[in-house]
Amino acid sequence: MNYKMVGRFMFLIIITEAIFMVPAWLISLVSGEDASASAFAITIVGAMVVGLLGLMWCRKAERHFYAREGLVSAGLGWIVMSLVGCIPFMLSGEIPTFIDAFFETVSGFTTTGASILTDVEAMSKGMLYWRSFTHWLGGMGVMVFLLAVVPASSKGSGFTMHLLRAESPGPNVGKLVPRMRQTATILYMLYVALTFLCFIFLLIGKMDPFEAICTAYGTAGTGGFGVKNDSLAGYSVYIQNVCTVFMLLFGVNFTCYYLLLLGRVRDVLKDEELRLYLGLIISSVVLISINTRHMFDSLGQTVQQVAFQVATIITTTGYATTDFDLWPTFSKAIIIILMFCGASAGSTGGGFKCGRVLLLFKNLRRNMQKTLNPQKVLVVRNNGQMVSEKVLDNLNTYLIAYVLITIFSFLLLCLDGKSLTTTMTAVIACFNNIGPGLDGVGPTCNYHLFSGMSKVILIFDMLAGRLEIFPIMVLLSKNTWKKLG
Amino acid sequence: MNYKMVGRFMFLIIITEAIFMVPAWLISLVSGEDASASAFAITIVGAMVVGLLGLMWCRKAERHFYAREGLVSAGLGWIVMSLVGCIPFMLSGEIPTFIDAFFETVSGFTTTGASILTDVEAMSKGMLYWRSFTHWLGGMGVMVFLLAVVPASSKGSGFTMHLLRAESPGPNVGKLVPRMRQTATILYMLYVALTFLCFIFLLIGKMDPFEAICTAYGTAGTGGFGVKNDSLAGYSVYIQNVCTVFMLLFGVNFTCYYLLLLGRVRDVLKDEELRLYLGLIISSVVLISINTRHMFDSLGQTVQQVAFQVATIITTTGYATTDFDLWPTFSKAIIIILMFCGASAGSTGGGFKCGRVLLLFKNLRRNMQKTLNPQKVLVVRNNGQMVSEKVLDNLNTYLIAYVLITIFSFLLLCLDGKSLTTTMTAVIACFNNIGPGLDGVGPTCNYHLFSGMSKVILIFDMLAGRLEIFPIMVLLSKNTWKKLG
Repeated sequence: MNYKMVGRFMFLIIITEAIFMVPAWLISLVSGEDASASAFAITIVGAMVVGLLGLMWCRKAERHFYAREGLVSAGLGWIVMSLVGCIPFMLSGEIPTFIDAFFETVSGFTTTGASILTDVEAMSKGMLYWRSFTHWLGGMGVMVFLLAVVPASSKGSGFTMHLLRAESPGPNVGKLVPRMRQTATILYMLYVALTFLCFIFLLIGKMDPFEAICTAYGTAGTGGFGVKNDSLAGYSVYIQNVCTVFMLLFGVNFTCYYLLLLGRVRDVLKDEELRLYLGLIISSVVLISINTRHMFDSLGQTVQQVAFQVATIITTTGYATTDFDLWPTFSKAIIIILMFCGASAGSTGGGFKCGRVLLLFKNLRRNMQKTLNPQKVLVVRNNGQMVSEKVLDNLNTYLIAYVLITIFSFLLLCLDGKSLTTTMTAVIACFNNIGPGLDGVGPTCNYHLFSGMSKVILIFDMLAGRLEIFPIMVLLSKNTWKKLG
Repeated sequence: MNYKMVGRFMFLIIITEAIFMVPAWLISLVSGEDASASAFAITIVGAMVVGLLGLMWCRKAERHFYAREGLVSAGLGWIVMSLVGCIPFMLSGEIPTFIDAFFETVSGFTTTGASILTDVEAMSKGMLYWRSFTHWLGGMGVMVFLLAVVPASSKGSGFTMHLLRAESPGPNVGKLVPRMRQTATILYMLYVALTFLCFIFLLIGKMDPFEAICTAYGTAGTGGFGVKNDSLAGYSVYIQNVCTVFMLLFGVNFTCYYLLLLGRVRDVLKDEELRLYLGLIISSVVLISINTRHMFDSLGQTVQQVAFQVATIITTTGYATTDFDLWPTFSKAIIIILMFCGASAGSTGGGFKCGRVLLLFKNLRRNMQKTLNPQKVLVVRNNGQMVSEKVLDNLNTYLIAYVLITIFSFLLLCLDGKSLTTTMTAVIACFNNIGPGLDGVGPTCNYHLFSGMSKVILIFDMLAGRLEIFPIMVLLSKNTWKKLG
């Protein structure tokens, strides 16, 4: 293990985070929130000092860097980022206990949006801004950001590839352009542009600018932290619809937008994952609308509300405008399945990813055919291209790890003695980075009632979900720490 | 598709079943149950006539037989067997509707033990005997029986291998001896001997002989149909403990018993699946006992009751002596996990199988190590022997199919509008051939409240679970029926 090189990366993250904290500090200053302002100031100064000293100490890092270091950097980086990010909450006294502040920050960065706060509106503006901003930064990923702005120097493409792979969700990370750094830059430019567009549309709906920024951050990162206690239920239908559309847009693989910019519309329309994603959305909206029609005043309102809820769940955002915990069992079952399924690979959304579901089905079909025709050579194709056996192997491993983590988290969380539905959906909602679940963690409830141990498990789940398991598992493997490099 | 050859097999099954129905008919006669006796008589005569005529018609079947035919025979055979088996229930009027009678019979043959009956004690003795006997026949499998008694002739080992594989659960079907027919014979001899032993032990506990036979059948097949409305709760502690021990014994891979007979005790003790199976049982009993200690009078009673419930669930039998639906969430979570896990491969128990769980963990570990050391060649070993990549591939396919069937069944069953826990555990309990679930299908409830469509789905799940998915999926694939052979 090349500790110095990993350390260098950690300190870079700390410095970046300190810089990103400046706007939150300014907002606190302008709003006259003294406690918040000094909390941010202390954190920023402390992080800069630690970061710069650390960078100097790690200057002479050796340059050899393998998969192991890439995975460890990704896993450790997110933990360090969350540890630094939760300091202002604690210093300002707005979330006094460490475990709660850490839970809230991890929930922010992983774009989960599960909150332990019972009264969001009591928070200072600076903290609310920072809380929503964690979604935005976590959505596209801080490593991807670093790749885009820090000179690539000598890190080697193996390392950067592993970082990008750790943060860009999906079974098969594609480079948009041959050079990794350019890919990262394009991704962030698209991300900034779409976020800005969302912000403008919200302003047009006469949303308060501060709330519009926070909501745009939460939508872009598919996070779900709101600035109101009733999430988005109190806003106009126009604003809710803007969020519906933008949540769905941010749940699309960003490669599609890049292809659109290049004018390759046909390739986008033919994309099989996009088709599955849209197909799932449309069929879920239709089925749930039929099933819940009696609960709303008009058909229009039914579809509008159902579409919002489907969008918020499949993109794993977690905003709410109605309490789907009151829906009939069939609709709740669809919601649970959408929770597992999640958004597209290469989007800011979480979950298992439509792309993986697609490959699972194709692989299953291929293997069934193989059973009947053992002598035939059959390959799995995605968008016409052959999928390598290695990708399929990794997919299977991912599924196994995904199922096992869900089961073990569920079992441990059951010690809290909450209902089976509460416990199960809490695990699903955190592991898939959604936020709200059903029953005790439904859209109108939150996570403050869980014990400290349960919060630790859910923190693990949120991180494992956002980084797609491996970087976090590698941190826990004793093999990782065996050899010094 | 070689239709005549498949047909020949179906008619053989019908004849075998008619012969096995004779004892039930005799019991009805002796007990003076006229309606039952004539229902059995009509079914037996009808089945014999149809079977013999059919066999003559299929005499000139061609001899070429592939994997496809083996799988189709297994899948179709079980459906035919259940269709014939449910006739007496309908003719006697004891279960008047077809869907209920079919559900009950499939539940019997698949050793699920899920019942639509609200008053078991109102049934005639003949029907109760037949109902319990279906467990026994389904436990080891009717094809395995046919392989043991019908002259092998020219079917070829590919065909018999597929039949044995379809009925003998587990990821890796081993032959005990080189010849398939001998293997089948040894399995059935062990099965008969163990069942008889169970019967004797129950008699020693002063159980009524008729009830002892039925209970022994249900225990041996890990089925779970009882002859009392309160299952085994009304019997003595001794009888309950006999059942605990024998349920656990029937959940062990029968290969272990064969090795014991050969004096290879050390091989048995070293068997990794057996160790996992026993480890799961012991740790579950300890954890649940601690968690439920306050619900029982003494520590002894706690352990005795918990051990029975753990045995009944992990072996997927489904007898009950206490209502575990009232247990704390943590204990219920363990019960749910044991439901998924199931008994050993090569036993009469259902579920995902301990052997598969073991391989999943080993494969996951191997693949994680591979991620860190891409250049290393790593193999998965089971009991010291290398597991082929093909077996691991099949395991992954099985997991995918297993998860997808669970999800789809759950979604469709939700249309009935029962609670999420009821719906989910109904699917789990049927798919894993257990019987009771939680909430609305808990140990004190039954399945008669589900709609016809839901019962059809659960019937599919029971068959798919017992035959380990592929034979049933093959029946649904249009490729299977495409070419005439």
